[in-house]
Amino acid sequence: MSDTRSTLVGPVEVVGTGLLGTSIGLACRRAGVEVLLTDTSPEHVRTASGLGAGRPRRPQDRPRLVVVAVPPDHLGAEIVRALEDTDAVVTDVGSVKTGPLASVTGRPGAERYVGGHPMAGSERSGPLAASAALFDGRPWAVTPHSGSDPDAVAQVEALVAACGAVAVRLTPEEHDRAVARTSHVPHLLAALVAARLADGPAEHLALTGQGVRDVTRVAAGDPALYGQIVTANAEAVLALLGEVRAQLDSLIDAVGTADRGGLEAVLREGVAGTRAIPGKHGAPVRPMRSVFVSVPDHPGELARLFADAGESEVNIEDVHIDHDPGRPVGLVELLVEEARAEHLLGSLESRGWVTHR
Amino acid sequence: MSDTRSTLVGPVEVVGTGLLGTSIGLACRRAGVEVLLTDTSPEHVRTASGLGAGRPRRPQDRPRLVVVAVPPDHLGAEIVRALEDTDAVVTDVGSVKTGPLASVTGRPGAERYVGGHPMAGSERSGPLAASAALFDGRPWAVTPHSGSDPDAVAQVEALVAACGAVAVRLTPEEHDRAVARTSHVPHLLAALVAARLADGPAEHLALTGQGVRDVTRVAAGDPALYGQIVTANAEAVLALLGEVRAQLDSLIDAVGTADRGGLEAVLREGVAGTRAIPGKHGAPVRPMRSVFVSVPDHPGELARLFADAGESEVNIEDVHIDHDPGRPVGLVELLVEEARAEHLLGSLESRGWVTHR
Repeated sequence: MSDTRSTLVGPVEVVGTGLLGTSIGLACRRAGVEVLLTDTSPEHVRTASGLGAGRPRRPQDRPRLVVVAVPPDHLGAEIVRALEDTDAVVTDVGSVKTGPLASVTGRPGAERYVGGHPMAGSERSGPLAASAALFDGRPWAVTPHSGSDPDAVAQVEALVAACGAVAVRLTPEEHDRAVARTSHVPHLLAALVAARLADGPAEHLALTGQGVRDVTRVAAGDPALYGQIVTANAEAVLALLGEVRAQLDSLIDAVGTADRGGLEAVLREGVAGTRAIPGKHGAPVRPMRSVFVSVPDHPGELARLFADAGESEVNIEDVHIDHDPGRPVGLVELLVEEARAEHLLGSLESRGWVTHR
Repeated sequence: MSDTRSTLVGPVEVVGTGLLGTSIGLACRRAGVEVLLTDTSPEHVRTASGLGAGRPRRPQDRPRLVVVAVPPDHLGAEIVRALEDTDAVVTDVGSVKTGPLASVTGRPGAERYVGGHPMAGSERSGPLAASAALFDGRPWAVTPHSGSDPDAVAQVEALVAACGAVAVRLTPEEHDRAVARTSHVPHLLAALVAARLADGPAEHLALTGQGVRDVTRVAAGDPALYGQIVTANAEAVLALLGEVRAQLDSLIDAVGTADRGGLEAVLREGVAGTRAIPGKHGAPVRPMRSVFVSVPDHPGELARLFADAGESEVNIEDVHIDHDPGRPVGLVELLVEEARAEHLLGSLESRGWVTHR
């Protein structure tokens, strides 16, 4: 995390008024900064402008910062064009950072380019899905290259702050390795698990529980978009897929030879990985405990549960609702700090809820 | 799903008073059925008995149904012993069904054995975690073998109904293939994803989002228990791991050769798999939509959100709370029927909530 003191100075030009571009426009306007909008589709510009994300850019406008928010396949060309056409700082919001940098390296103005990647928004698309609050509290990778001007970096971090996000500074190479690990490879393996469900007899899926639903949720994402992203990050993804393949081979070997020790070693590495995920708000991971409550499945019951939980002054860190296949009762899992779990259970029980310890 | 009309007739003996055994005892007592408790640990029997799960079995007791609820490694021996020591119907609650069956096949009384597997409870352990409601609305696989007496099957399905669960009838072989697909292989691949997080530089994990948290959640499970389960289901698990390996190889090939078509084909199969998961309550899958709301992260705010959502008379099918790394505001995702989403958004906005469309 970086400590940014610069204030964002406009006008900011947003190139590409999809979900991310329009949301950045809205967030900058919220911060009182002038925003200029550009898109190959004049209709998209009108929509974004109508939503309050800024005004169409005119030829005589002189942006101080250009944010390139176009699909992965067009990023490099648009960043180069922005560096050539303006004397502004240029950033982008692409999911992969070494590719766009390669398009820029050695060109005039390369010192004005600083890559960026907000960790938000991939499950929706289009300007109508945009929101000034899309980035609130989210990490936003800022990836200067070795030739980036420090003032350009400060200006991009000022954009991140104006959008309410938290700048995480990484080199472009580190960034790509990081997202391969935390996003691209998990997505691909979730797809491999989900693909097995598509292959299986429908009646076997009656035994589907919450676990496999969670494992496969991200695999519902747009194949064309993820195809672009993974292709653009091929090197880092391949390195990790090679590790996965090697460990899968040991796993197959361990299961095939009933080598319980080898199998448990892989499973223990998995447990260690779940513990390595940072806690909320960047704080150290606190011990958490799940509290399970039976909840009738009709409007208002969850409200009543959360109202009763609220009365107990215990903060609920996460919620899962278990989908059940045959009855109008759901099982709700409330994740709370371990030290507060007994208090919550007692409080809910005294209000008539059926809990499962 | 089967239609069971038999009523459960006791006494029911529960062998093994851990989480599942004690919960079955509590559920049977709730249904007014006499329960006899057996465990290698007299203290566990006293605890379960003290919780109201039944009374210690005496030598002269004559159970009508024996439920074997011991760890996977001991299942076969305990089922055989129950068939030899009593003339009762015998079932078990193990996660794998062909192994216990092999111990029984060809022995006297094998016709009185019918396997079972409730889809509940694996994340907690011990009699103190037990609950009469643990199985409410959950699927419970019932796995007769070719020689099972139909009356024995009916009695096991009566137990399932008395526990509030939904019987799903499968052959033992089908069951094991089904759980390999819906539970064991997803668990192993989640562990492979999580293991990559344990390997990676800590600063890269600052980019961890909700996606990878969901993919890896189950990988936090007890390695010793999952080691036993996976070993016991080695054949079905190996068949699927072989398919995963073959598809992983195509994936590595597609990414390595920038074969976008091959990559998208794998991703599309993943999307198809997520759509194959059955909807809630066994109903056809209805189109769902996510509604995103910014929620301050302190006690009472979720209650206020759910109260306001409840006022709008829209049923919330699932909830995710997004963990954010730097600010005291969470993003809550509410999954609702697509047709009701706009109504909910309008209703929440009119009450002052910041929504993201």
